[in-house]
Order: sequence, then C-alpha cells, then structure tokens
Amino acid sequence: MPASNFNDRFQHHLSRESRARGNGPFQMLDRLKCNGDIDLISFSGGIPLPSKFPIRKLSVSFPELGCFQEDEHNKYPKEVDVSFDMRNDANTNGLDFEGALQYGQCQGIPELVKFIKKHVELAHSPPYKEWDIKLTNGNTIGLEYCVRLLVDYGESILIEKYTYPAAITAMAPLGVKFISIDMDENGMIPQSLEEVLKKWDYSKGPMPRILYTIPTGQNPTGSTLSIDRKKKIMALARKYDIIIIEDEPYYFLQMDACNATTSEAQIELQDAAENSAILSSFVNRLVPSFLNLDTEGRVLRIDSFSKLIAPGSRLGWITGNPLFIDRITRAAEVSTESPSGISQIVLFGILNHWKQEGFFLWLRELQHTYTNRRNALLQSADKYLPKSICSYRAPKAGLFLWIELDKSRYLFDDQNKPVSEIELDIFQALLQKGVKPVCGQLFMPYPEKNDRIFFRFAYSVAPIDKFEVGMKRFASTLKEFFRLNEDELQS
Amino acid sequence: MPASNFNDRFQHHLSRESRARGNGPFQMLDRLKCNGDIDLISFSGGIPLPSKFPIRKLSVSFPELGCFQEDEHNKYPKEVDVSFDMRNDANTNGLDFEGALQYGQCQGIPELVKFIKKHVELAHSPPYKEWDIKLTNGNTIGLEYCVRLLVDYGESILIEKYTYPAAITAMAPLGVKFISIDMDENGMIPQSLEEVLKKWDYSKGPMPRILYTIPTGQNPTGSTLSIDRKKKIMALARKYDIIIIEDEPYYFLQMDACNATTSEAQIELQDAAENSAILSSFVNRLVPSFLNLDTEGRVLRIDSFSKLIAPGSRLGWITGNPLFIDRITRAAEVSTESPSGISQIVLFGILNHWKQEGFFLWLRELQHTYTNRRNALLQSADKYLPKSICSYRAPKAGLFLWIELDKSRYLFDDQNKPVSEIELDIFQALLQKGVKPVCGQLFMPYPEKNDRIFFRFAYSVAPIDKFEVGMKRFASTLKEFFRLNEDELQS
Repeated sequence: MPASNFNDRFQHHLSRESRARGNGPFQMLDRLKCNGDIDLISFSGGIPLPSKFPIRKLSVSFPELGCFQEDEHNKYPKEVDVSFDMRNDANTNGLDFEGALQYGQCQGIPELVKFIKKHVELAHSPPYKEWDIKLTNGNTIGLEYCVRLLVDYGESILIEKYTYPAAITAMAPLGVKFISIDMDENGMIPQSLEEVLKKWDYSKGPMPRILYTIPTGQNPTGSTLSIDRKKKIMALARKYDIIIIEDEPYYFLQMDACNATTSEAQIELQDAAENSAILSSFVNRLVPSFLNLDTEGRVLRIDSFSKLIAPGSRLGWITGNPLFIDRITRAAEVSTESPSGISQIVLFGILNHWKQEGFFLWLRELQHTYTNRRNALLQSADKYLPKSICSYRAPKAGLFLWIELDKSRYLFDDQNKPVSEIELDIFQALLQKGVKPVCGQLFMPYPEKNDRIFFRFAYSVAPIDKFEVGMKRFASTLKEFFRLNEDELQS
Repeated sequence: MPASNFNDRFQHHLSRESRARGNGPFQMLDRLKCNGDIDLISFSGGIPLPSKFPIRKLSVSFPELGCFQEDEHNKYPKEVDVSFDMRNDANTNGLDFEGALQYGQCQGIPELVKFIKKHVELAHSPPYKEWDIKLTNGNTIGLEYCVRLLVDYGESILIEKYTYPAAITAMAPLGVKFISIDMDENGMIPQSLEEVLKKWDYSKGPMPRILYTIPTGQNPTGSTLSIDRKKKIMALARKYDIIIIEDEPYYFLQMDACNATTSEAQIELQDAAENSAILSSFVNRLVPSFLNLDTEGRVLRIDSFSKLIAPGSRLGWITGNPLFIDRITRAAEVSTESPSGISQIVLFGILNHWKQEGFFLWLRELQHTYTNRRNALLQSADKYLPKSICSYRAPKAGLFLWIELDKSRYLFDDQNKPVSEIELDIFQALLQKGVKPVCGQLFMPYPEKNDRIFFRFAYSVAPIDKFEVGMKRFASTLKEFFRLNEDELQS
C-alpha cells in the first residue's frame, strides 16, 4: 500500500498543530542535486567539527550472554566490555561512532534503528509492511508526541478507569477531557467501551477518536488484556474510527504462573538457549499486541527501554503507520531532535553483542526476577491480609499488586464520607505504621469521582526481605479501619 | 526576593497550557510525612530494580587538561579515562551512578546540575540570586519549552530578520506570528525594535511579549550584539514588559581578532593556565550576556553542549527565574522527563575531571579552532571574491560567514524577478559548480518578503584545504550572474 493511502485514511486524525508541520526548509535545498561528476564542497551544515568532540572512546561493561543472574552482592558471574573508539576508524564495533555524536540522526542512529526494527518484527510481526519506527526519549514523551499529533484542545480521550498518572498530568493541560472505561481484573471491559461509543452524547463534544491503553501489567491495576478482549476492542476501533495508543512499558515483563519455581524456569531458559528455540518460545508466551492485530495502521505502539535496560537511558520507540511516524519525526526535528547519541551508542553496544536472541534471554531473566518478587509479595499478602476485606489477583505481568478494600466494612459512622477521604485517612495511618503504597485515587483524572478503595503495591524495588513486615503492618492498620471476621481479629 | 514575587511579576506571561500545569499527584502524597522513628518500607515507586540495569560500568576517554590540541590524525597527545563502576560503591567517581540510571532526576542529576550552576555563576554572574536552571535535551527543545511556556496560539513573537530555521519551523505550527526586527552587521538594531513596539498596530493582535534572539555569532548572519545594544534592548524589554529568550549555542565561540596568530593565542593560553588566571581572563573577553544584565528574571537563557562537547550529547540547560523554571520542569516531568542519564554521566565524567577552569580552557581551545577556520575562509574570500558585488564582515563569534551579493548588479533583464527566485537560481548554479552554501531566504519566516541576496557559508566542518577552491568556484559562478568591474573580470 503506498504511503498516500495512509494519508487518505488517517489525515483527518491529525491535530491542527500536526497538519501545519511542513518539511524543514533545508530539505527543500537538499532535493536540488548537483552535477554527479563534481566533488561537492559543502559549506551548508552549521555543525561542529568532530575532531573537537572530546569523547574519544566510550566503553560499557555488561553481563555476558548466559550470565544474567547476579549473586547476592549484585555481581554477575561474567561481564563483557564493548568499546567504541574514535581513534580507530570512524566505524568501530559495527557503529559510525562519529556520526552517532553528530547532528542529523533524528529517527535514531541507523544501526540501532535497524536492530529495533528487527526486534519489532520478531516480537509483533506487524501485519502491514509499511510500518515504521521513530526512536524516542522514553514513553512519557512518546505519549506526548502521540497526543500532540492527534488531539486538539477540548477533545476527549478514552482511557482506562485507573491509569498512569503522568499520562493524565501530561494530557490535562492540553485541554483533553477524559472518558473513563470500566475495568475488571482482566483490564478494560470491551462492552463498556462499546456502551460509551454507542451512546455517545454529542452535547459533550465530538466522539473521542483516541483510546489510550496500557494493555499489559496495567499501571496501576496490574491487569493484562487477553487476546480475546484485544480483538473485540480492535473491532470497535475499526467500527468507530478510533486510533489506539498502546503504551507497553511492561509488555515483556509477562510472568510465569505463580506455581512455577525459579529452578524450573532456569532449566527451561537454558534448554531454549541451547536449542536456539528461545525466539519462538519467548514470543509464543506473550499475549499478542494490538500492533500484531493491526492490519490498517490504526495502532500507535509506544515501547521503552526504561524497564528493560534502565530509565536513565531515556530511550524508547514508537511504532506506527508512515503518516503518523513522519509527522512525529517532523515534530521531533524541532524539539528533542534525536534521543541522546551517547545513550544510543551504549545500548547499541549491549544489544549488538547480545543479538536478538540474547536480548530475549535478558528479558526472560527480567521476567523471572519480577516473577519471584511478585510471588514473594503474594505469599506475604496471602499470609497476613484479612480476606474478608482485602481482594486482589495475582498480576500476570508488570510491577504492581492492586488491592481493593471492601468499603462496606469500613468502620466509621459517617456513611457520607467521600471515598477519597477514607483512602487518604488510611494512607496516613499506613505511613505512621511505616508502610507506603499509593492510593487508588491518584490514578484517576477526576479523583472526586472515586467510588472504591484501592492501594497499589509495587514489588519491583522494595527489599524482598521486608515484604512480610510490610504486609503485617498493612494488615494491622486495616484492623483499625474495618470490621473484620472473628477469626481474622485473633490472628 | 521570595518566589511569590516572581509569580506576581511574571504569572501573566504564562500560556494557557502552562497555567494549567499542576504539581504531579505523587508530590501530594510525598508531602505527607511518616513518623520519624520508623523505618519506612516503600511500595510506592513503580521503578525497576537497579541490580537489573545491565550497564555495570561506563568509561569515557577524553583529552587530558593541557593536551587539547589534536595532531593531523586527530589524535590528542594525552588522554585520560574516567570510569563509573556499579560494582564499587553506588557512589563512584563523585557520582551516584545507580541514581543517575534510575527515574526521578527531572532537573538533571544533582552532581551535573551543581557543576553547571557554578559554571553559570562564573560565566554570567546573574544579578538576582533566585535564578535556577533546568537541564534540557538541547537548545531546540529548550526553545520549544520556552515557547509553550509563554505563547498562546495566534500570538506574535519578535525575531531577528534572519534567524535559525528550526526556530521558525518549531514555532509556526504553534500558531506563532513572526515580527521581524531589522539587523545590520552588528545584529538586531535597537531602534528598529523600539519602532515596532512604539507604533504597534493593535489590529494585528496584542503587542508581542517575547523577543527571540541569538545574540552571539548569530545564525545565519554571524553578527554579535554589543553590550551597548544589549543594554538598550534590555531597557526596551523592561519598558514594554517583554520576555527575552536568548539562544546562545555560540556564546563561548567568541573569537580572537583576525590578526591574532595561533601561536600567540597558545602562549596566552598556557600563561593563563599557569597563573590560574584563565577564569577571569576568559570571561572578561566575552561580551556580557543578557542574563548578566537581568536584575528581574526577564531573561530565559538557553545553552547547549552541542557545539562545546558534541551534538549527540543532547544536553543543554535553561537559566531563568524560579517561576519559569518550575513550570518548564513540570512540563518536562510529563514529556522528556530528564535528559539521558547516560549522557549526563559521560559529561559529568569529563567536566568533573577538567573542573571549571579546565572547561574554560577547552572552550578557549574551541575558540582557537574556529578562529583559524574563520581566518582561512576570510583569506580565501578576500583573495577570490569580486569586491564590487560581495560584501561581508569578519564574524566575531560562531560558525558562519554571511555574504551579501549586490542586487543592483544582477545581470538579467527582468527587474521584477523576485529576489527569492534569483537566490535559488544562483544556488542551483553553485551546486553545478560543486559548492554548496545556504540561501538567505531559508532563514526568514516569510521568504517571499526577501529583498536582499545572501548566502551563508559555514566554516566549521568543511575541509580547510578546500576553502580556496570553494571560494574560487563561488567567484566564477557570480561572474555569470552579475556585472563586475573591469579589473575583477580579468582576475
């Protein structure tokens, strides 16, 4: 399908700002070509002299393939060094080092772009061939690019009832109105989405054209959309001409079942590495993405290295149709330009050494790490939390346990006390006891509409040996606020 | 002066978008404090586990202090390595390495922020004490932050008649109308600015509240505003309540006089290093900045490492009053977050080794490098260009030689041919001869209003041994388009 077809299909989705983005003026001159025979002397680029980049050599050390488990002192059994050296050729270790430190790499440095495109192909097999990517400075600006690409002031966006607070804080000043879609333990409910669209009240403005979702290990609920729900949502998107922004920082942190042990998982990992089946074995375990279901170019997928390598890399990428990627690139050219070349060099050094298979093995190791942490927190929760008031499900992905407290068992007399206030009261009491989760209302665009009591517990970074005492403190605080069953009071 | 005074003074300058930026919801919870005695177990942050950041060690090699001149193979006489090693303490080489790779560093990593604040103090001595900085991903997004902070759709901005094309391309889609201020070889003319403001035609909308300027080594004209002009412009800004955005990528590339030789400069450099007078000797040679004249907080200064270290660092900073810096930080929190931690670590490694004085010595070396290149291009221009039609001034800073061609000597009959077309015709002919400058019209928001013929020649990166042939080709092309003096025709 030629690029113009994407223009016809999706042009009407562009915001006023994005429609006004022309090509840069230099591109006009660059189209004029010189006589092929002549050695062109260019005085054109206002760029600095590369011999005066003081970064002459960059080295990074990282765990060697197959040595991905650290010991209790956070040491890895074997590490490898990769260096990029300006004093060798400009090309060093598969990379144009000088080029990566210079201007003009807006999409991303070509070597890393190539690696990531291959990764996207392996992980998602997008079903239309013109898809493209643009490297970003992480998913937070990835989302901002998408919103500024598509949404004009005062328009509505469909979001999950509880969602990533920075998404709300990012979009609200751009005049976005939020339409919340109901969720259950399996994420957004397709029927609720359909209800909203079918019964859209046009007095509230035009029907929303954007659905923002975190399908996997959703922040904050930890829920993961099934392939079945995704298909239903995709069909609704087609029917109502909705663009889906899938924000997937936790996509590769899909987990083993709660009863899998580390040693089992390790064996499976080694087996896979030995028989080179890691690729298909890894990918087949993942719930297919919206991108994988998108035959038209209706999905903008945002991915990030923050949870996979480190947040400080400030690196991610957007995948989408060529019209959207081109307009996002134009926006980036006059704002962030490229992500940091230094970051890109370091990540390329690691990924290029590991190769595609090795990167998946690293992701598999991350899955094990967070699976163990999730299991440890669940174990403590199961042991200490009063079942009569606490309900939660084992998350299938991500970093979060989402616990609901039964509002009907709240002890105090004032039945008219807003849920938001009750949540904050409990939060303050938890702090005094020395345990700090996050209140559910923080994940809502309009917290005053909060009607249920939730707390989010991240199991990603707290010391694992403090999980028990954390859950004990939580349980003992709840006894002050809720009516428990007899047997729970004694424990 | 308390921060609230800045609010009173500058709140009315904030855009609708910026006014709507609240504090993040997490900050609300963070204000609630726990009992001081208790060891708090935090399940709050949805952040990844640092032992699973595969970047275990980062090293950078760079020229040692006093060894800043490379040989003809681009080798430096002595280089030094600095490493940050996760396997040592979290604190390594003066830096919290783990922290720099984690979330939560929106302003910038504290160690680098501290270094840059000291640098700003040494270089500019801002005359009010509450000024602050925010690290950025370079000046292009630095400018975008400033524009989105201050300007609503459809408002006007004052710019220099010829200016940085990406600034135009960035601002136009945000609905900015451009009001061009006349320039001469010394940059923006204060009287022209005053005329525009005094005779403002309110039928064109409200009076502009923003002046965007590149005071030093201006792109594209190479002009540099004198301290005298800056004082006049500053007084006008106060009188008419204008915010000045000073975009200064070339500020530290102020140059030696054309007749200074490299060896003289070298001696002066060594002397300064030896007697530790480099700081005052370096700073005293610079034209004072607008920031240095700003007693109120009316200037937003944007600085970049792109020309000082490398564009691929994607690192810069904004300096301004606390209200503006706070609002820009809020915007960054939900877009770029921090600049790349990896970039910051590498730059901190270099700067922390060189120290403030060493960084100024490096900048001094850059000044010499570009002085030599400017001198070489001027020499070729003086030798080959026909004086009767070409006029130019030696730039006092930056990367650009700006050459005007005398329109009245243009040979062809059609006197009504638009200047923009003439410029493009000449440009195409230059390409065919194998020399590529940039047309003047690319630096105008409305190129159709172009009334003079200009070309910009960057001397920063073209091979210095090609300068002669480049100028020869330029001169010989001009003979086809312009009426020359007798003696010039013979040469």
